[in-house]
Amino acid sequence: MQLKPTKAYAAAGVDIDLGNRVKAGLPRLLAATRRAGVIGRVGGFGGLFALDVKKYREPVLVASVDGVGTKLKLAFALDCHDTIGQDLVNHCVNDIAVLGAEPLFFLDYLGTGKLEPRVFAAIIRGFAKACAENHCALIGGETAQMPGFYQPGEYDVSGTIVGVVERKRLLDGKAIRAGDLVLGLASSGLHTNGYSLARRILFEQMRLTPKSYLPELQNTIGDELLRVHVGYGPLMQGLLRRFNPPSSARNQAPSIRAFAHITGGGFIDNIPRVLPRNSGVVIHRETWDVPPIFRLLQEAGRVPDREAYQVFNMGIGMVAIVAANQAQAVLKFVRRRGHRAWCIGEVVRGRRGVEVV
Amino acid sequence: MQLKPTKAYAAAGVDIDLGNRVKAGLPRLLAATRRAGVIGRVGGFGGLFALDVKKYREPVLVASVDGVGTKLKLAFALDCHDTIGQDLVNHCVNDIAVLGAEPLFFLDYLGTGKLEPRVFAAIIRGFAKACAENHCALIGGETAQMPGFYQPGEYDVSGTIVGVVERKRLLDGKAIRAGDLVLGLASSGLHTNGYSLARRILFEQMRLTPKSYLPELQNTIGDELLRVHVGYGPLMQGLLRRFNPPSSARNQAPSIRAFAHITGGGFIDNIPRVLPRNSGVVIHRETWDVPPIFRLLQEAGRVPDREAYQVFNMGIGMVAIVAANQAQAVLKFVRRRGHRAWCIGEVVRGRRGVEVV
Repeated sequence: MQLKPTKAYAAAGVDIDLGNRVKAGLPRLLAATRRAGVIGRVGGFGGLFALDVKKYREPVLVASVDGVGTKLKLAFALDCHDTIGQDLVNHCVNDIAVLGAEPLFFLDYLGTGKLEPRVFAAIIRGFAKACAENHCALIGGETAQMPGFYQPGEYDVSGTIVGVVERKRLLDGKAIRAGDLVLGLASSGLHTNGYSLARRILFEQMRLTPKSYLPELQNTIGDELLRVHVGYGPLMQGLLRRFNPPSSARNQAPSIRAFAHITGGGFIDNIPRVLPRNSGVVIHRETWDVPPIFRLLQEAGRVPDREAYQVFNMGIGMVAIVAANQAQAVLKFVRRRGHRAWCIGEVVRGRRGVEVV
Repeated sequence: MQLKPTKAYAAAGVDIDLGNRVKAGLPRLLAATRRAGVIGRVGGFGGLFALDVKKYREPVLVASVDGVGTKLKLAFALDCHDTIGQDLVNHCVNDIAVLGAEPLFFLDYLGTGKLEPRVFAAIIRGFAKACAENHCALIGGETAQMPGFYQPGEYDVSGTIVGVVERKRLLDGKAIRAGDLVLGLASSGLHTNGYSLARRILFEQMRLTPKSYLPELQNTIGDELLRVHVGYGPLMQGLLRRFNPPSSARNQAPSIRAFAHITGGGFIDNIPRVLPRNSGVVIHRETWDVPPIFRLLQEAGRVPDREAYQVFNMGIGMVAIVAANQAQAVLKFVRRRGHRAWCIGEVVRGRRGVEVV
């Protein structure tokens, strides 16, 4: 008996053959993300990565999983699917870079009702592009056809990244002390947070559409909201090499004390993750230019200040907490690499938490 | 300004405070999955795992991502949410065990419209239970509240596992040769595949409900379909230690040539993944007891034989390809550990593929 894909399963909404055909284009896309360590090819039961143990005395694997939330609704509305994968990969890379880790590999999950080859290819292109930019191998993925789960044309994506850091160089915030300065790196927009609230304000309350052009944004709402989540990984690795060199004295506190990725929970929930007990942070909101989209959202949505800084990044995608005497050098380093950055606050003695003044 | 969760975001359907409260119960659950290597705690930007490099000459990380497909619809219908996590972890563990790897850690993704604390806790309990059983640390997760994405009471889950294997002991099927025997390990039911077709046959064509009791199953449809995906990981690791010991001569072919996890794509798509060119497999379907649920599905759904073996596992959840002279010893080993198993076929010279006769 020779077995070929047949009809009953397809009638139930799952097309194995279509799935296989769609996946046939994968190897070429994934090859672009190949890096030292990758073994074999996607298509087996698992992705393989040989860790170069000679490079590490005590390698610590750092793993993080994330999604892009309801930013996806914008991708659906604009039928633009090749930036979502970039958002997700950059988000994940940022999350592990905060701990000092460099990415090794990434795996994606795509849940959908019916697989559309064109959309699938665009999504995977986004993953592959951002993986290549971050020197991260795309070694696996799962595409689930789940009839009756997702609305037509819709899907959900999640991704898991694994990176590595030498144990001694793990950034844990323990070196933070009162007087350290808080630097903010510019975001490109909402990144991947606050979309449910933003959509409610813009599309329900203001009755705009993704195609609406707003002069104050010099952009359409859709394009503004779809801006790709900035990947700070290579910049952060550069900062750590330059300011926390492995050669520095063993018990010397690192100049870069910690990073905090400003994602869901904004300043309020993310900065405390890296603060030691008895250290608080004061953020001075007049120190940077809050981009027009955030001003618009806050004003039109009458979002109280305190909530705005918990839901949105307000123009700051990544925070670095640094020794005061290195702050100017760090800012210079960051700006020379094309990122905008400001000194936005300081560490103070007190309850662990964030005050925005 | 002190910042507390407020109302606009909640009105948009996202409740950060609820999310934080729900997550407050996590540390206790995750502690049960703690194993050597885990550093720190969940709550940072990434999960940490120190790889014990002294244990490996050339450690290869093996990673796999999966979901549970539309089996979730059964969980929704029966309001039973604590087995889904077990299905997913066991599925992932099996996928990497096939390559000879033992699990290190797991991360879950949960996408949902509105977070229900009771359901969330049940799902995570399932993840934690199966992780503990598989000696796998649950080191991270993401729960996305996505209003307007999922139907009320519904959610999707995916999970990523990372394991490790010594490079020399990676099982790649290269040792497979004509005359090897194919052993089949019993599944507990559909595991996590073929649910869209099964639901169509049982609930649409036959108009049964999950509560329908069928004498031939001695069970309700719902309970039958929710049976937990068998985790073969510990058994497979035991088999490899016993039959492919590290001490065996370097160039000697391993007695256990390969495993194939019978998941989506059934026998037809999964077994060829491990076959070398010019090797085919013949499966003799009279050699094991096809469980009543599969007979029911095939008969009621008039599913052609050729399709049944591509959509369903037909009672075989894992296949081992072994040297003929070790087959009886392997079967004995497996049965002594409480698994049912049969010799179900053999490797033949010919086109890479599977014939079911």
